[in-house]
Amino acid sequence: MATAQKLPKLINGVAVDSLFATIDAIKATPSIAKFKFRIKNQWEDAGQNSSTVDKFSGAGGEQSRPKPFVLAADEPPILLGKDAAANPVEHLLHALASCLTTSMVYHAAARGIQIEEVESTLEGDLDLQGFLELDKNVRRGYQGIRVNFKVKADVSDEKLQEVIQLGPGHSPVFDSLVNGVPVTVTGERL
Amino acid sequence: MATAQKLPKLINGVAVDSLFATIDAIKATPSIAKFKFRIKNQWEDAGQNSSTVDKFSGAGGEQSRPKPFVLAADEPPILLGKDAAANPVEHLLHALASCLTTSMVYHAAARGIQIEEVESTLEGDLDLQGFLELDKNVRRGYQGIRVNFKVKADVSDEKLQEVIQLGPGHSPVFDSLVNGVPVTVTGERL
Repeated sequence: MATAQKLPKLINGVAVDSLFATIDAIKATPSIAKFKFRIKNQWEDAGQNSSTVDKFSGAGGEQSRPKPFVLAADEPPILLGKDAAANPVEHLLHALASCLTTSMVYHAAARGIQIEEVESTLEGDLDLQGFLELDKNVRRGYQGIRVNFKVKADVSDEKLQEVIQLGPGHSPVFDSLVNGVPVTVTGERL
Repeated sequence: MATAQKLPKLINGVAVDSLFATIDAIKATPSIAKFKFRIKNQWEDAGQNSSTVDKFSGAGGEQSRPKPFVLAADEPPILLGKDAAANPVEHLLHALASCLTTSMVYHAAARGIQIEEVESTLEGDLDLQGFLELDKNVRRGYQGIRVNFKVKADVSDEKLQEVIQLGPGHSPVFDSLVNGVPVTVTGERL
C-alpha cells in the first residue's frame, strides 16, 4: 500500500504548517518568543565601518549560524567618504523595506493568500543642517519616509490594499521606526 | 622656487577642510543641505528580498554612483527562512551602529580629536508575540536596544566619554530610531 508523502505546505515560500506550529508553541510557552539580536561593528576609516552578524538568542536558547554575515557601510564622496558601500541612512531604508515585505508575505501566507510578486520603492528626506548643528529647528534624522509597494496577486482591489497594509500592520522595523525605541549608548576605553 | 604642495588635512580619515567648506556652503545656501535617499526592494521568496541602492539627491542636484549596491535580507530557519542573509531587524542594528560610529568619527574630526580605534556591540530585545499578534500588550518592534562602544584615543577619560556621546548627539539614524519618523505606506497592483 502506497503511503502518501506529506510535503510541507508552502505559501509564498513560507512553510505555513511550521508557522502555525510556532504560534502554538509560543501560546504554550510565551517566553520562547523573546529574542535578542546582536551585531558587532568595527570602524575602518572615515565613513567606512562594518558589522558582523552572527548568533542570536530566541526560541529558548542561543542560535548559531553556519557563518557570520558582514555588512559594510560608507559614505559617498560628497559626504566625505569613498563610496565603498551604502550609507547608514540607506541601510535604514533597506531594514524598513525588507521588514515590511517579509511581514506582508508571511502574514499573507498565514491567511492563505498567494502573492506572485512584490517590489517597493522608498524615499526619505534628510536635511544635513541637523547633523551639522546649523539649525536647531532641523532634526538630525529623517523628516519623513515614503514607501510605495507594487504587488501582483490574484485578489480583488480591496483585498490587495489589505495585503499591502499587512506590512505596516505587523513589521517590527516599521513599529520601531515610527514609534521609536529606547536606545542606551555607553562606552569605555579600548 | 619650490611651491609647497597643499595636501588635504585628514583627521580620522575625514577631509576636515572639505567638511568646513561644506558647512560654509550650507550656511550660504541652506537648500543644498536637503537630501533624498532612496532604495528599491524586490521580493524573492519567503523571507528573502533585496534592495538596490543607487542615486540620491542632495547638494542641489541628483547624485549618481559608479555602480549600485545590493543589500540582501533573509530570515534564519527558526524564523522560516533559509539564512541567506542578515534579517531586517539585524540590518536595523547595522544602520544604527554604522551611523553612530560615522557621526562620532566625523564630529571628533571637526573638533581636531584623533581616534585610533572604535568598535561597538549592539543588542536589541524583540518579543515575537507582537509580530504574531498573540499579545496586544507586546509591541511588534524592538523593546530596547543597548549600544556599547570601545574607543581608543589619546584623550582623558572625561573627553573619551564626550567623544562617545558625539554619536548619539548627532546621528541621523539614532534620532530617527529614538524619536520616530512619519512613514507613509501606499501601494497598487503590479
